[in-house]
Amino acid sequence: MGVLDDLITELARLPGLGRKSAQRIAYHLLQQPPERGRRLAETLLAVGERIRPCADCGAPAEAERCDICLDPRRDAGLLCVVEEPSGLQVVEHSTEYRGRYHVLGGRLSPLEGIGPERLRVEPLLRRVESGEVREVILATNPSMEGEATATWLQQLLAGRGLRITRLARGLPMGGDLEYVDGVTMAHALSARQEVR
Amino acid sequence: MGVLDDLITELARLPGLGRKSAQRIAYHLLQQPPERGRRLAETLLAVGERIRPCADCGAPAEAERCDICLDPRRDAGLLCVVEEPSGLQVVEHSTEYRGRYHVLGGRLSPLEGIGPERLRVEPLLRRVESGEVREVILATNPSMEGEATATWLQQLLAGRGLRITRLARGLPMGGDLEYVDGVTMAHALSARQEVR
Repeated sequence: MGVLDDLITELARLPGLGRKSAQRIAYHLLQQPPERGRRLAETLLAVGERIRPCADCGAPAEAERCDICLDPRRDAGLLCVVEEPSGLQVVEHSTEYRGRYHVLGGRLSPLEGIGPERLRVEPLLRRVESGEVREVILATNPSMEGEATATWLQQLLAGRGLRITRLARGLPMGGDLEYVDGVTMAHALSARQEVR
Repeated sequence: MGVLDDLITELARLPGLGRKSAQRIAYHLLQQPPERGRRLAETLLAVGERIRPCADCGAPAEAERCDICLDPRRDAGLLCVVEEPSGLQVVEHSTEYRGRYHVLGGRLSPLEGIGPERLRVEPLLRRVESGEVREVILATNPSMEGEATATWLQQLLAGRGLRITRLARGLPMGGDLEYVDGVTMAHALSARQEVR
């Protein structure tokens, strides 16, 4: 069963999938009409051929610029900096945000040998220097490396008359106080808000 | 981001993947060299084109007959009946079994409208009637429907001078007695073995 094993191996390399779940998916596809697998294969190929980083923000785009950068209803004065396109999706999903984005393509990580030169920082500075941007929202991940990246960006962007903000930290919706870690609770306490 | 959304939609239709994990995989692939996605697409296409059911046992095969049915070292007198190829994989994985298989392609399920005519029963009877088979091991899933399918097969195969067996039921390895359900415990008790 050579090609079936190949498929299981390729699937098992995807994030969040182990060998068991890869097997399950492969056998599931065998039981489907062959169009199912073909359609998945074709969308994979189309993504590989057609998607490239937006020339402005770095988000995945099918044209030279992404839909958000091309949308004139988006506020060009607001720039939300995320590590990866997945962060952009989460901010979009909140439907609270009507500005634009900048995708860094990662975060500073000395352990993984990722320094400033590996991130899309030059294009960020160019966008900021164009004078259109009023506020930069640092929306890096709430991890050690994300925090370090935000602090570094904050220093890099300081002194340019920009408003620089970061996402609020505090309790997430749902769940139970019992499962809130100490750092989150410390943030939630120090940023507590008066009830009126 | 049309094709990217298409990819996420296709991935999210796979078993065990929700929209979140599909997104994660799609964005992961975007960050990989394009060969990664292409290789996955090509193995998907190869599976769709080359894999078909083995003419004898019904397991996925790249030729007319699968490797196990073609292997002369396999005991043709032993036939292990499974619902799906995934069950075959689990039995193979135990490395305890040197006989052959028969894949039913499902189990009796009145609720899903799956009757005997939807299962590969005729080929099973033909194999049994060839006279080569000494023992049929019923290895359907330990579920209500799997049990019903095994009972039905047992009646169908009775009176042919065959040994008909079923997989032992009892405690699974690992875990804790606390998490063992009542039916499993009842099996484990009634099939208890003397320690010598």
